[in-house]
Amino acid sequence: MKAAYYTGDQSFTIREDQPKEPQAGEARVKIAYCGICGTDLHVYHGAMDARVTTNRVVGHECSGIVDALGEGVEGFEVGDQVVIRPLASCGECPACKKGYTHVCQKLKFLGLDTEGAFQQAWTLPANTLHKVPADMRLDFAALIEPTAVACHDVARANIQPGEDVLVIGGGPIGLLVAMVAKQAGGNVVVSEVSEYRLGIAEKLGFKTLNAMKVNVAEEVWKMTGDKGAEVVFEVSATQPGVDTMTEAAAVRGRIVMVGIIGGRKPEVDLFKFFWRELQLLGARVYEAADYEKAIELIVSGAIDCETLITDIQELEDITKAFQALDGNATAMKSLIKCS
Amino acid sequence: MKAAYYTGDQSFTIREDQPKEPQAGEARVKIAYCGICGTDLHVYHGAMDARVTTNRVVGHECSGIVDALGEGVEGFEVGDQVVIRPLASCGECPACKKGYTHVCQKLKFLGLDTEGAFQQAWTLPANTLHKVPADMRLDFAALIEPTAVACHDVARANIQPGEDVLVIGGGPIGLLVAMVAKQAGGNVVVSEVSEYRLGIAEKLGFKTLNAMKVNVAEEVWKMTGDKGAEVVFEVSATQPGVDTMTEAAAVRGRIVMVGIIGGRKPEVDLFKFFWRELQLLGARVYEAADYEKAIELIVSGAIDCETLITDIQELEDITKAFQALDGNATAMKSLIKCS
Ligand SMILES: [Zn+2]
Ligand SMILES: [Zn+2]
Ligand SMILES: [Zn+2]
Ligand SMILES: [Zn+2]
Repeated sequence: MKAAYYTGDQSFTIREDQPKEPQAGEARVKIAYCGICGTDLHVYHGAMDARVTTNRVVGHECSGIVDALGEGVEGFEVGDQVVIRPLASCGECPACKKGYTHVCQKLKFLGLDTEGAFQQAWTLPANTLHKVPADMRLDFAALIEPTAVACHDVARANIQPGEDVLVIGGGPIGLLVAMVAKQAGGNVVVSEVSEYRLGIAEKLGFKTLNAMKVNVAEEVWKMTGDKGAEVVFEVSATQPGVDTMTEAAAVRGRIVMVGIIGGRKPEVDLFKFFWRELQLLGARVYEAADYEKAIELIVSGAIDCETLITDIQELEDITKAFQALDGNATAMKSLIKCS
Repeated sequence: MKAAYYTGDQSFTIREDQPKEPQAGEARVKIAYCGICGTDLHVYHGAMDARVTTNRVVGHECSGIVDALGEGVEGFEVGDQVVIRPLASCGECPACKKGYTHVCQKLKFLGLDTEGAFQQAWTLPANTLHKVPADMRLDFAALIEPTAVACHDVARANIQPGEDVLVIGGGPIGLLVAMVAKQAGGNVVVSEVSEYRLGIAEKLGFKTLNAMKVNVAEEVWKMTGDKGAEVVFEVSATQPGVDTMTEAAAVRGRIVMVGIIGGRKPEVDLFKFFWRELQLLGARVYEAADYEKAIELIVSGAIDCETLITDIQELEDITKAFQALDGNATAMKSLIKCS
């Protein structure tokens, strides 16, 4: 089978590997599609070499078919269509003991801290598998992982029907958050700086604000009758986004941090947290329930996968696919067809 | 009757005023004691002249006795011992309509935005009064307002019995937060930089950390078996405090912002909010229930008022009292005896 190794310096090398036999508790999944995540782009640029090393198969936004099962694995059969929740928690740390296994203090993220999905068959712990319907399109199923991120963000916000929701940043995760928030009953507006992305957001049926042209917070206060947004998702990972999140939030508003600003710590208007009794909620990856919700939303058609998937390339062309995606203002989600 | 007018330039002027007759819905309260708040010190230094103006009676941490009642006021009688919850909300704004009247979008804070308590009789809306027991010491009752602040902070944190709690900053509000958090079942440690305040915290029965001598976050992780503090109160209003709050918090930890940093926006480690799914909760003033809780805690002796009240001065000596408090490292709470 073929596997794409990240070999440093913005390159991948395709190697011929022997598929690994699944051990007790493991499954081997024939990977159908795997999306390219922002994190994978960081790896490609060498920014995560210390964590990932430069001779690893990465990738984690995948769908596939069960190919072989190790001893003791129940609930799955060879041939099942599945997706993978790429987390391995220790089960022993204080966070795990409280049930917060997805934020385990020793969490391993599969496909970064271990081998990943940009290969034709991935052998991994079977407890990471979620079954999807036998007739589900596996290209659409590759969007379940990022959709689960959005489901987790929205669950953290605990959106109530009719609440006004501002999503700052209209990239793939921002638009998924917007779609999931709308399904939860939110009255969603998306703020973005790219005309192209604003166009996609509008095509998906969202009100939009161009942050280059208007004062987003002021517009939100106007649109909501001087109330502000009950829920704000900061997905832009920019200082202006962090400024807008506190300015646009209603009294007792909840702000979910989705975008992570690298490097220097951003400045945050803590005075507004005091003045309006705001709440900031960090959100990381997903829990099992978020996966089940994401599967349900994609199967039901609530997530417009056709619009989000802008490109599909063969595993052999993975370097080309990363090159094409890099800095491409008109790409949303690129998938690699692994087998 | 005598009233102390803030007349700008670090001075108060005592004037002889006519006690105001209470109108419909109002009460006149003979003020017994009024504490000097950090906010009053800001007024004294001229930092709030634009909001307060320079010819106003300030003061809001008071206790007293009902002296006269306007038409239609029910539930109180002349002679009742009372404290005042110094808030006036509009009842019309989106925040008020949701029931968040204490963070009304047009909130008036009595004693800053209106006349206050540094006078012998204060005429004000009767809906701000809370009755206290007839045998309660009125000097202790003057601590109900700051204790209600602490009760509100602790209510925002929703402390569960046995949770580890870090209070950053051991001034009057920090120690009140520590005492209320302990009553809620928290396992409290207080971090401070002043040896004097550390001594008071220890006298009150708290574990302490001297932030000038140890790395507070590291100590908290050690003390909690590599778990961190489930709840952190940031009361220091300093950048190092804001740094410590995210470092010391456990996975899914709740951080309550109590101290407000003026001027420049502080830098906040939003990455840690993501990584550990932290929660930041702004807290402002109090609700009626916080007052009832504060009254209960002071009446029951759970708050050590003797230790917190370090100074009582006559109304005539108010300028001297402010001078003495200003920059005094060994003062906790100074009260003015108004009548
Ligand atoms: Zn991803
Ligand atoms: Zn763990
Ligand atoms: Zn005060
Ligand atoms: Zn209001």
